Amino acid sequence: MSKKEKVAIIGVGLLGGSLALALKKNKFNLVGWNHRAGSRRKASKLLPVVPTFENAVRGADIVVLCAHSGSITPVLKQLTSLVNPGTLIMDVSSVKGEVVREAEKIPGIKNHFVPCHPMAGKEKSGPAFADSKLYKGRFVFITPLSKTAPKLIQRAVRFWKRVGAIPVVMNAKNHDRDVALTSHLPHLLASALITIYGNQIRLSPSTQRAVGSGFRDFTRIAAGSPAMWTDIVEMNAGEIKSFLNQFRKNLALMSKNLKSGNRRHWISFFEKARSIRENLE
Amino acid sequence: MSKKEKVAIIGVGLLGGSLALALKKNKFNLVGWNHRAGSRRKASKLLPVVPTFENAVRGADIVVLCAHSGSITPVLKQLTSLVNPGTLIMDVSSVKGEVVREAEKIPGIKNHFVPCHPMAGKEKSGPAFADSKLYKGRFVFITPLSKTAPKLIQRAVRFWKRVGAIPVVMNAKNHDRDVALTSHLPHLLASALITIYGNQIRLSPSTQRAVGSGFRDFTRIAAGSPAMWTDIVEMNAGEIKSFLNQFRKNLALMSKNLKSGNRRHWISFFEKARSIRENLE
Repeated sequence: MSKKEKVAIIGVGLLGGSLALALKKNKFNLVGWNHRAGSRRKASKLLPVVPTFENAVRGADIVVLCAHSGSITPVLKQLTSLVNPGTLIMDVSSVKGEVVREAEKIPGIKNHFVPCHPMAGKEKSGPAFADSKLYKGRFVFITPLSKTAPKLIQRAVRFWKRVGAIPVVMNAKNHDRDVALTSHLPHLLASALITIYGNQIRLSPSTQRAVGSGFRDFTRIAAGSPAMWTDIVEMNAGEIKSFLNQFRKNLALMSKNLKSGNRRHWISFFEKARSIRENLE
Repeated sequence: MSKKEKVAIIGVGLLGGSLALALKKNKFNLVGWNHRAGSRRKASKLLPVVPTFENAVRGADIVVLCAHSGSITPVLKQLTSLVNPGTLIMDVSSVKGEVVREAEKIPGIKNHFVPCHPMAGKEKSGPAFADSKLYKGRFVFITPLSKTAPKLIQRAVRFWKRVGAIPVVMNAKNHDRDVALTSHLPHLLASALITIYGNQIRLSPSTQRAVGSGFRDFTRIAAGSPAMWTDIVEMNAGEIKSFLNQFRKNLALMSKNLKSGNRRHWISFFEKARSIRENLE
């Protein structure tokens, strides 16, 4: 390539900042932008930052929207009139069905937009926690629009490979079902448990001494960004509700089985759970 | 002390084995015993092992029962006729109410037995995972019988301090309530989720790709020992059920709130959860 590709990162937080660090090793012309002036100042420690959205995206070969699920559609609408004919636009948001459905309605966006969701993150947010290896070895789910050109999808695949990720093309519906189970439901459960724990330690502060590493591991995800998780819960409510209700049925059965004389039931329940968990690694 | 104290470790698994390694630095005459010959062979890599229970405990100054909650009472009954008048007996099991209630009925045991529960463990069991630092900085809950002599409790306190732990004397009822919330309920929730996950990946194996570090952390505890967890669930059913039912009410409310137009509710729910979780560390 004769000229460095321009990559615009819109929203330089944990994911955008980590992308900037990972792309620095490649030969890109990076530019970042954040909505708030304070965030732009923080981001400027990681990559060149410009003061306006238009400046950031004009002439970009690739635009990566590192914003929460709820803000993707409005930004896409603005972008169509600003970008070049060949610009690839991607996002990194966690719920894909609604983003795909809304994007299908935006004229011309199918020539630009490839929805993506990297399975990468931390409970800490903000560019201060950016990590050049955040994407390394992680799956990135790519959920194309119905009329996305295969060549555009391939550009997205190559992009993610450059930061060490493993791109997987799949449909948005299956994606949202899968993450409802492996990410969204656990987040709700951890948040509910920590809420009960919070009430309990107000009644009995010494309960804090009974917190061990298991409880810490179990509840770690509850420290995630409230704004991001609200978007997720609103945009993936259907899939989450379906697993939540399955889970509630399991707990109802469990409550019935919490009485003596059920040894066999519990042994086989815990054995099955252990065996599935051990197969995870 | 003119003579090395004899410490008998009954049940050399993860907890017993780690105790053996931690005590080696102190000047004790250590001896271990396991029920099964195969387990005795494994244990003999960590400390001197004798072939019979009687040999292990006779003449011991301290006996530590590193067995599951369900097997403590029958062993205590055997011990009264075998130990010296001054022998201190401790256990390390996770549920204390029933152990205390049953021990109160054993004649003379109040002069020997101090029920203990170290908040230490791993998902891996067995002496192969023993770790000399397992108890370091961990709370050990001591839940005395109603007539235990303060001097005997003080011997238990000193014992745990020698392996770097932080002994806390409390009543068994509060102990069982606290760990029901911080350990037993999370274990049930993680096991239920991994069971649903197991069913889901049978229908759709590719769901495995959606497993990230959050899911791994959340479900790690589900790999614990089925026999130990069955004992716990049977012996602490009442306290677990009470928190489980509180949790189920929270989930029922959550299911109702999974619809659009509830942004404010979710933002404040996730903010509260994050703030409690962040205060944990």
